[in-house]
Amino acid sequence: MFDKVLVANRGEAAVRIIRALKEMGIKSVAIYSVADRDSLHVQLADEAVCVGASRPSDSYLNIKNIISAATGTGAQAIHPGYGFLSESAEFASLCAACGLTFIGPKAETIDQMGNKEHARQLMIKHKVPVTPGSRDFIKSPEEAKKVAAEVGYPVLLKAAAGGGGKGIRQVKEPGEMADAFSLAQNEARLDFGNDQMYLEKVLTNVKHIEVQVIRDSFGSCVYFPERDCSLQRRKQKVIEESPCELISESEREKLGQIAVRAAEAADYLNTGTIEFLMDQDHNFYFMEMNTRLQVEHTVTEMVTGVDLVKAQILVAAGEKLPFKQADLGFKGNAIECRINAEDSSRDFMPSTGQVDYLFLPVGNPGMRIDSALYQGMVVSPFYDSMLAKIIALGSSRQEAVARMQRLLNELVIRGVKTNKDFHLAILADSEFKQGTFTNTYLEREFLPRWKEQVDKHEAV
Amino acid sequence: MFDKVLVANRGEAAVRIIRALKEMGIKSVAIYSVADRDSLHVQLADEAVCVGASRPSDSYLNIKNIISAATGTGAQAIHPGYGFLSESAEFASLCAACGLTFIGPKAETIDQMGNKEHARQLMIKHKVPVTPGSRDFIKSPEEAKKVAAEVGYPVLLKAAAGGGGKGIRQVKEPGEMADAFSLAQNEARLDFGNDQMYLEKVLTNVKHIEVQVIRDSFGSCVYFPERDCSLQRRKQKVIEESPCELISESEREKLGQIAVRAAEAADYLNTGTIEFLMDQDHNFYFMEMNTRLQVEHTVTEMVTGVDLVKAQILVAAGEKLPFKQADLGFKGNAIECRINAEDSSRDFMPSTGQVDYLFLPVGNPGMRIDSALYQGMVVSPFYDSMLAKIIALGSSRQEAVARMQRLLNELVIRGVKTNKDFHLAILADSEFKQGTFTNTYLEREFLPRWKEQVDKHEAV
Repeated sequence: MFDKVLVANRGEAAVRIIRALKEMGIKSVAIYSVADRDSLHVQLADEAVCVGASRPSDSYLNIKNIISAATGTGAQAIHPGYGFLSESAEFASLCAACGLTFIGPKAETIDQMGNKEHARQLMIKHKVPVTPGSRDFIKSPEEAKKVAAEVGYPVLLKAAAGGGGKGIRQVKEPGEMADAFSLAQNEARLDFGNDQMYLEKVLTNVKHIEVQVIRDSFGSCVYFPERDCSLQRRKQKVIEESPCELISESEREKLGQIAVRAAEAADYLNTGTIEFLMDQDHNFYFMEMNTRLQVEHTVTEMVTGVDLVKAQILVAAGEKLPFKQADLGFKGNAIECRINAEDSSRDFMPSTGQVDYLFLPVGNPGMRIDSALYQGMVVSPFYDSMLAKIIALGSSRQEAVARMQRLLNELVIRGVKTNKDFHLAILADSEFKQGTFTNTYLEREFLPRWKEQVDKHEAV
Repeated sequence: MFDKVLVANRGEAAVRIIRALKEMGIKSVAIYSVADRDSLHVQLADEAVCVGASRPSDSYLNIKNIISAATGTGAQAIHPGYGFLSESAEFASLCAACGLTFIGPKAETIDQMGNKEHARQLMIKHKVPVTPGSRDFIKSPEEAKKVAAEVGYPVLLKAAAGGGGKGIRQVKEPGEMADAFSLAQNEARLDFGNDQMYLEKVLTNVKHIEVQVIRDSFGSCVYFPERDCSLQRRKQKVIEESPCELISESEREKLGQIAVRAAEAADYLNTGTIEFLMDQDHNFYFMEMNTRLQVEHTVTEMVTGVDLVKAQILVAAGEKLPFKQADLGFKGNAIECRINAEDSSRDFMPSTGQVDYLFLPVGNPGMRIDSALYQGMVVSPFYDSMLAKIIALGSSRQEAVARMQRLLNELVIRGVKTNKDFHLAILADSEFKQGTFTNTYLEREFLPRWKEQVDKHEAV
């Protein structure tokens, strides 16, 4: 086992990992930017190294300084957390080159799964269901029309090398295909120097369902009960839960086996998450694989009792998984609300300042708050606005929701604005309560209601 | 179900119960003394009624004022918590007389189990093993010597109506019996007006093992995995855990069945705890029954996932237990440390004052802190010194201990002295780590070592 591990992250993620290291008897090295010198993760770690100025590119993304901090302190491994360098194949391979264990998958895997069309082709090859669409590159509008007629409109034309919304066109009917094809292909050629195109059906009324897996270096792989992460605003998850209210025990098992097959196809090492879309007939379609621990791993931990970060560290050290699939029962329902420093009554504008009073409602069964908050902490403008993850576990989804409402009502954070009231409004919404919401519910249905509520309140 | 429940307690116990009521959608009424007007339990409840001056006898033990507060606010039931009136048969019967549901057993049961010799006779009758000793009252020193020769010395001569250490004599050998008998009997006659005597073997090298049970009004009864509460100082529990490291699965089942038999013998209603002594051969001896929820119910909740306070409220409302014995698995090991406002380096002298900085290490899997603490709270001299219960759950006892060490190391309470360092020293002690300690370990073995450590530290 490692003697010392550097945690290449900040705030809540770093605190989560440093605490696990402490319980394992492993020394921890924190890194920090100038803005973070008083952060909780710096206070909790055994050692701390300043790696640069406050902007992420100068510090938490500064690969050279981070690797120097690890070698300089004698750390044997680096845990990247989530965000920042956690999905950087370059960082992972540089760690390996410097004799440091990157706690995560191999650099090649990060690279392979980071390219969405590569990942899609790999999944098709291994019979993991993907979104209906072309099985190979599409060479002409006529070919595209033929595939679209098979899978049904609307469809997305996508540049194979694309990303960031470039080289993508939505096509609603055959008459639009010819123009859309040439526009997208030209864009792809200009932006990526590669005009290979493929096509996918646009899935509507779908849930975002993801499956956590972990695979050790001996090839043992287990899956965990799925998470429903359909509640998103601007592609950011807002509330996550496990399990999904609509999925049956036999579907869970089937989905888990698909996820394991996907991980095996990628010869995956350590924790990862396979993201799927689920349509109304409960068909699952591979979307992408996240090659790291995720923010919402907490809900999985709550229902299974497994400490995923400790398991990650064991696997990275070359040990066997400490559990088998048959050992992994789960119990109850867990929900997580992400509390952000933002003004949800003013279009979620980020909020900064000093936390001058803090009351975290710790206590009673079935709760957990992961956070780097402390009274007196300064919320700076440089980083992600997430302040805390409030997690409630109940013997039923209804109990978990009631518990979450109680926790949020008790929570006090003064000095910065938060989205606490926004969460409370979602929890009280009837569609949320039913658990039937899809990935468009929050933005298309709930947000207009929320804005109305805010305006009414302002008018009073 | 009740619409409104009054919580006849303060601090951590009241907060625990008010939170459960909120999650069940039941309105809560807090009571408070003058000293407690700014307490957390008062802030969290839906309503709060001042029931008297700061001394417990004026407020939290003031039966008339408390019942008036319940009837005046329209509460239908009273939860007594633990301590204060929770084992008062008088209070329970007055509640019933006023049409209020007492959330606990019937007044007769409290009365019957509160008398130790009554309880002992009932257990003997129902074949629950009790400490070896007389099977009936003992009338002479000769009879006492006969029984003592059978069970083995040392023995305790006890007044049947005794209590508070009066009317009790320890006898080490036959030659001491005649004098001891007449002294104890005279004391019993003078103090209790009743000179009936009985005799029990003194058990040494024993563990204090207790079994939580709950029984509904339909006669369904379940037991929970045992708690090891052997770590006591001056009869106060310091650290509790569940399960006991030394008890096997078959012993657990056997012990659970004995506990259920004891509860059925008493026609018991709601939560209760059967306390046993366990000798080195793993024989169990009934000691007494606590007819209420206990402080350490938390460790049972952590390993089973059951919310015992909610179950209590359901049972009191006449509902069926929401689980059966077969549903009650348990997972892992849970440990609780009671953090008291006391100076453990100066003979545990109580400490009072304002909490001027507070950091509770909430976060990561497997932890819970039950407390009424908040930054700015004043610790007054009127009540029990317990500030917080820190609870750690691990997949093994070793992990639970490591987690507890991490939690205690992070905990910051400034403004009052606490016994945090005392707990950390116990956790680091090799006999604690082995789990083999008995109920004399803390006072006889550990405390001398602790005092030495404190003295050495003072000398530096």
